[in-house]
Amino acid sequence: MVLSYAAQSARGLDKPVVPQKIVDEGKTLAEKFLIRWKGENLTHNTVALRAGTVLTPASVSLAATMGHANIRVVRKPNIAVIGVGDELTPPGEHLSESSIYESNTFGLSSLVEKMGGTPMRFDLIKDSMDLLRETLDEAAASCDAILTSGGVSMGEWDMVRRIMEEEGDIRFWKVMIRPGGPPLFGSWRGKPIFGLPGNPVSSHIVFTVLVAPWMSSSMGSEEGTRPRLANRVRVEMEESLKGAPGKLCMRRISIRQEGDKLLGSTRTHQGSGNIHSMVAHNGLSLLPPDSDCQEGDTIDALWLL
Amino acid sequence: MVLSYAAQSARGLDKPVVPQKIVDEGKTLAEKFLIRWKGENLTHNTVALRAGTVLTPASVSLAATMGHANIRVVRKPNIAVIGVGDELTPPGEHLSESSIYESNTFGLSSLVEKMGGTPMRFDLIKDSMDLLRETLDEAAASCDAILTSGGVSMGEWDMVRRIMEEEGDIRFWKVMIRPGGPPLFGSWRGKPIFGLPGNPVSSHIVFTVLVAPWMSSSMGSEEGTRPRLANRVRVEMEESLKGAPGKLCMRRISIRQEGDKLLGSTRTHQGSGNIHSMVAHNGLSLLPPDSDCQEGDTIDALWLL
Repeated sequence: MVLSYAAQSARGLDKPVVPQKIVDEGKTLAEKFLIRWKGENLTHNTVALRAGTVLTPASVSLAATMGHANIRVVRKPNIAVIGVGDELTPPGEHLSESSIYESNTFGLSSLVEKMGGTPMRFDLIKDSMDLLRETLDEAAASCDAILTSGGVSMGEWDMVRRIMEEEGDIRFWKVMIRPGGPPLFGSWRGKPIFGLPGNPVSSHIVFTVLVAPWMSSSMGSEEGTRPRLANRVRVEMEESLKGAPGKLCMRRISIRQEGDKLLGSTRTHQGSGNIHSMVAHNGLSLLPPDSDCQEGDTIDALWLL
Repeated sequence: MVLSYAAQSARGLDKPVVPQKIVDEGKTLAEKFLIRWKGENLTHNTVALRAGTVLTPASVSLAATMGHANIRVVRKPNIAVIGVGDELTPPGEHLSESSIYESNTFGLSSLVEKMGGTPMRFDLIKDSMDLLRETLDEAAASCDAILTSGGVSMGEWDMVRRIMEEEGDIRFWKVMIRPGGPPLFGSWRGKPIFGLPGNPVSSHIVFTVLVAPWMSSSMGSEEGTRPRLANRVRVEMEESLKGAPGKLCMRRISIRQEGDKLLGSTRTHQGSGNIHSMVAHNGLSLLPPDSDCQEGDTIDALWLL
């Protein structure tokens, strides 16, 4: 016979469930088996899973053990991902001397997926305000939110900033962080739009610290159970780090456990265009504005998940 | 005009890329623009992404920036997930007094997905060796590996253990961990099979500490870049924890950063049937066999991702 565990989604309490088959043999249960009592884990009317909870593997199990064959979930948001820039060439095509391969829309799409959204990549926009307008309109009509990459600085040809100034609704432009300085947030035809910087590291970091929490919160996640891309920790640095004047400085660091501490170190060139630095490291420093970090200092950091 | 960055997948070195449009204006580049040098980030013949690397959002970006429109990847393994047990009722159906809802196959399927595999859930197996054999055969024919849940203890009706003893190939049975004691590993008709315990917490933990590293390694991931479900850390416990005689003890703990330390605490009942404990906590203690932990002790722990 098989030992029958008490129902965890107990509809009663205080009484052990006595598996029928075992009783039929006339043996003392406690002699041979580990018995689970009804209501041992969860009792009647306990709220075990709250609305706004991220469905992790364990919470999926928990929902099932309570008998839920179906539960209401938030629809995955469709997020438009639009690359902007005259200098960009799609990977696989011929690269001219004054071009670079476009990479941000691929990385941003992966980040959107990691956060539980569905990325919708649009074709690259070269320097055409009309094409940009058309694409933003199409994205606003078909998606829940829009991410652009590039074109948010102060130049005449920074088209995303310009079109948002002239025809959109800007809530903020520029955040005092490095890298990732000039991100823009607002709405286009009623849909939320993030204008992310074009530097690969900057767009990745702005997604991590601005877009990810926004996605969590707009999907209805509650504080503490939000899907997120990093854990905030304290890290003792093995090397000095240069901060940034007037800006929160997020340098790429490698975090590892050693002894009873988390230690941080840096490995590669830190240029904001060098996405390799995000592959070679697993964390970001959180140096307050105008502060450097000396070797041996303990600093706040994000440990990327 | 748009500032053209140097190609990161540089095919030459040492020469700055001069964006044509800017030169046409006859201005000094450094006066107006931040210039990126060709080969600044990655140089010709640098191996930036190695085989066996997990494709994170940043490494997807990196592949794109090097011009790769397609890269060879490991096929997602199809993993059969089979629930075994007379006491189990599918969620949503009527629950008799001596039954519980089946939850493990849902949680295990989520874990398989989180590790980059494709879960294939099979129908529940009640106490029938013939049906179990038939299902294992079908799973071995159609999947890359098999996970069963339940039926691996020492009882006459622990069918997975019995059928593996009689007709399969067992490499090991039982691991000295608590919870999660009696997992089994071997092969069925040439396919790897993990027989996981039926307790929800046990199966979740055995997946985390045994199946996940096995999946990473069999997908060709190299140490250090493996997809994984936890970071190993040191945690100062705010409460005492009872260890287990002769077994590594993994109690559910909540890990949080406070001051310069990671602190650990426990919240709920720790029974191995109580999957709620995996939802309410975010870590596992790693107490060595025969050792308890006192309040204030610093212990090894897994911080679940």
